[in-house]
Order: sequence, then C-alpha cells, then structure tokens
Amino acid sequence: MRILVVGASGTIGRAVVAELGARHDIVAAGRSSDELPMDITDPASIRAAYARLGKVDAVVSAAGKVKFAPFAEMDATAYEIGLRDKLMGQVNLVLIGRDHVTDGGSFTLTTGVLDSAPIRMGSSASMVNGAVNAFAMAAAIEMPRGQRINVVSPGVITEAMKDYAPFFRGFEPVPAARAALAYARSVEGAQTGQVYRVA
Amino acid sequence: MRILVVGASGTIGRAVVAELGARHDIVAAGRSSDELPMDITDPASIRAAYARLGKVDAVVSAAGKVKFAPFAEMDATAYEIGLRDKLMGQVNLVLIGRDHVTDGGSFTLTTGVLDSAPIRMGSSASMVNGAVNAFAMAAAIEMPRGQRINVVSPGVITEAMKDYAPFFRGFEPVPAARAALAYARSVEGAQTGQVYRVA
Repeated sequence: MRILVVGASGTIGRAVVAELGARHDIVAAGRSSDELPMDITDPASIRAAYARLGKVDAVVSAAGKVKFAPFAEMDATAYEIGLRDKLMGQVNLVLIGRDHVTDGGSFTLTTGVLDSAPIRMGSSASMVNGAVNAFAMAAAIEMPRGQRINVVSPGVITEAMKDYAPFFRGFEPVPAARAALAYARSVEGAQTGQVYRVA
Repeated sequence: MRILVVGASGTIGRAVVAELGARHDIVAAGRSSDELPMDITDPASIRAAYARLGKVDAVVSAAGKVKFAPFAEMDATAYEIGLRDKLMGQVNLVLIGRDHVTDGGSFTLTTGVLDSAPIRMGSSASMVNGAVNAFAMAAAIEMPRGQRINVVSPGVITEAMKDYAPFFRGFEPVPAARAALAYARSVEGAQTGQVYRVA
C-alpha cells in the first residue's frame, strides 16, 4: 500500500511510520516535512499536498493541536484553536482527501483518552476528541467507493510523559509503538466507524 | 429556583418549560422571544441577555442547529454552521453564563441520539453532539463555585416525527414530555458531568 502519514515527525507519527513502513510505501507529510509540506489548518495547503501526492491507499493523521488551559481562562477564542486545528484540520484531510484515496482505501484519525477521561485544563481536548470520534462514526456509513474511516484514541504516550506527566497523574502511559499497532489495525484491517482505544 | 430556558419556544423547550414551570420561575429566551431575545450564535447577544437577566440558579439550553446533508455534499463551510450554532452557541452560554449563575447552580445542554447512532446526512449532528457531550464531561470537573453541568441526549422527538421520520426510520421516538424529565433530573438533581440519554 501507499500510505500518507500526516504529522509523521511527531511522537506518534514516527512510531506509525516505523510500524507501517516495514510493509508499505510511506509518504511523510507535516508542517516541517521536506517530502510533503502540509499545514492541516489551511485547506489550500491540504489541497496542494494531495495534488502533488496523487493517489494513496490510506491516509493516517497523527496531527492536530488544542489549547490546554484552566477552564476559568478558556474563552471562545481559545476553543477556536482546537476546532480549527485538531478537529477541522483532520476533517478537511478527509473531505479533501476523498477524491485522492483509492476505492476501498482508508482514513485513520487521532483523538486521545481525554475523549472519555477528563483532566484539568483539558476541556478543549475533550471537546475536540469527542467531535472527531463521533464524526468518524457517522462519516463511516456514508463514505464513497468503499472507503473506510476509523479513529485511534491512545492514552498519554510514554515518550511524551516528560512534558505531560504533571497533567496526567495516575494515567498509565502507552508506548508509542503500542499505539502504532492500532493504526496498523485500522489501515490493514477491514473495519470502519471504529474508535480503537489504546489504554 | 429561577431558571433560564434558551430555545423555550422549540419542541423540547416548551416541554421543559411545562415540566420545570410547575415548580420554578422560568425566564423564556430565544431568537424570537419577547421576554428575553437571545441569539446563541452571537456572543454579544448572549452577553446582553445575561446582563438584562441578572442572576439565575439554572440555565437550560434546548437550542442549536446543524446542517443535515449527504456526506458527499458536506464541506468545511457546511460543518461550520453546527460548530457556530449548536456547539459554540451552547458553549458560549456556559462561558459567558458562569458569572450569572448562582453558586451551586447548573447548566444543562442538549445533544441527541446521533451522538452514538449515526444516520445518513447526520455527520455534522454527530460531530457536534459528540463535542458537546465531551465538553460538558470535562468542564464539569473545573466549574467554579460548585456549579454543575450536564447534557440531555434525547432520541428523535415524537412531536418532530412529522418532519424527521424519513431520516429516523426504525428509531423509537421519545415524547417531548419524557425528554423534559431528564432536564428536571439535571436541574433539580445533584449530579454533574453526566449525559442523560432518553431513548
């Protein structure tokens, strides 16, 4: 398979490239990618990247940021960051990508454990993760030409604990390589509309 | 209690007013309300309405629209409608309302069965409902001064079946008066961070 990995240089992205790259042809995209530069917050950038790319059999998104801040400090503008980036960035990867993915190909998006387990400062992450999970569940039943769509929702990643540990006390971290297995399950499996939880 | 009901003239809103109005003082708000005009898509309108209102013990939102269309026709602009209206409209009711709700008061927002059961043309509704459910779950643990926040997620409403039946074949409709009970449970109960499903 030819697989586009967006956010390929991130902690999860690198592990996905290592897992899927062993068996498939990977195109590594991202904001700072030399191979295929792509800013998911800019639909024109997504469109240009897909045009350069041609057809792929699978799209994996391990990209998308949100604002982390105490709820008392969150206003509409702060929520807007996550809606633009991790939500509509990933959704636009699907909307624009539909025509560039082969019949029966797949999309795999990323959310995270905050979809169902809240932490302080995490209300935007929860909002966006809940939105992406439900979007994928619903889009799955209307995808064109047998295309599939799933989500991977990993726990806090072991390799990111040096930055995130204070926010995720008591959460059992998940090695990026274990999270990457769920992306393989989505891409190489046959299910659709699933949220693969890696806890 | 003094209770603000936003979307008070809608199918669910009227049932909520009937249920809670039997025991409490209701202020009926909405786009076409004479008592308290409020357009939830406009933060300035929300701010002006709360300023006129003074303090309330509970805010119930039964407002918010989304675009229904086949997934093939949905683009970023079409999803924007639901993000502006049913998602950020309801979220702004909370963000702006925090200072206008009494200590220990509550917010109750509305989603619906498409949060977990997809239908054709419903991908925006699913996205937005998933976002609101997860937002409320997360905001609940950081609400100020003992304030609570819950969501009611009803099935398709019996009284709306004349318009919605073709989209909800096989879904068992819920009378608005039954859905209204869940709002009473949220407002008059003591739980927070809950999604009350009325199926």
